[in-house]
Amino acid sequence: MDDCIFCKIIQGKIPSNIVYRDDEIVAFRDINPQTPTHLLIVPVKHITSLVDLTFKDAALMGNMITVANKLAKDEGIAESGYRLVINCGKQGGQLVAHLHMHVMGGRQLSGQLG
Amino acid sequence: MDDCIFCKIIQGKIPSNIVYRDDEIVAFRDINPQTPTHLLIVPVKHITSLVDLTFKDAALMGNMITVANKLAKDEGIAESGYRLVINCGKQGGQLVAHLHMHVMGGRQLSGQLG
Repeated sequence: MDDCIFCKIIQGKIPSNIVYRDDEIVAFRDINPQTPTHLLIVPVKHITSLVDLTFKDAALMGNMITVANKLAKDEGIAESGYRLVINCGKQGGQLVAHLHMHVMGGRQLSGQLG
Repeated sequence: MDDCIFCKIIQGKIPSNIVYRDDEIVAFRDINPQTPTHLLIVPVKHITSLVDLTFKDAALMGNMITVANKLAKDEGIAESGYRLVINCGKQGGQLVAHLHMHVMGGRQLSGQLG
């Protein structure tokens, strides 16, 4: 997707602070962090949003959560606690049209989830 | 887990509004909904939290997201938008010690994720 900012980050065309990369998943720091640790985990292939997932993508989503857990440990928030969030569509608050999972922690998070 | 409220819901020992069930996943309505649609998706087997997942659980987590997408369609929020949240540990805001995924929608959600 030529006009997708996350595809450009994945391809190295836009600078970013990448913390993890494998063949199907890339993770980088959110440029406007809401919490001391605020990472975004994205699939390398352009999937616009959750509703565009097919049954075949279940393994990919499971792997994204596995990577999130690894990164939580790397960031030192695995024991203190963290939150995974995927926003989908307008009312879900999705701001970039490339599926992404937020990994947030480093302070007490609100019980209000949206 | 004898003292786990979600295990009791899964086993039918506590009444709840169950909207989905298969061999490995159960979904029911949150008893204190924050949004017009607020579902909880849980694994049937007792997993305390995200940090307790093993590599073997990746498929289960992928299936939970697949079920979340199906339920979003059933609830009529797939197109308007929705949010998936998994809280882990104290600072993550996890209130019940049985891994669960929130599915939230039905109104505009806040951009503040915690």
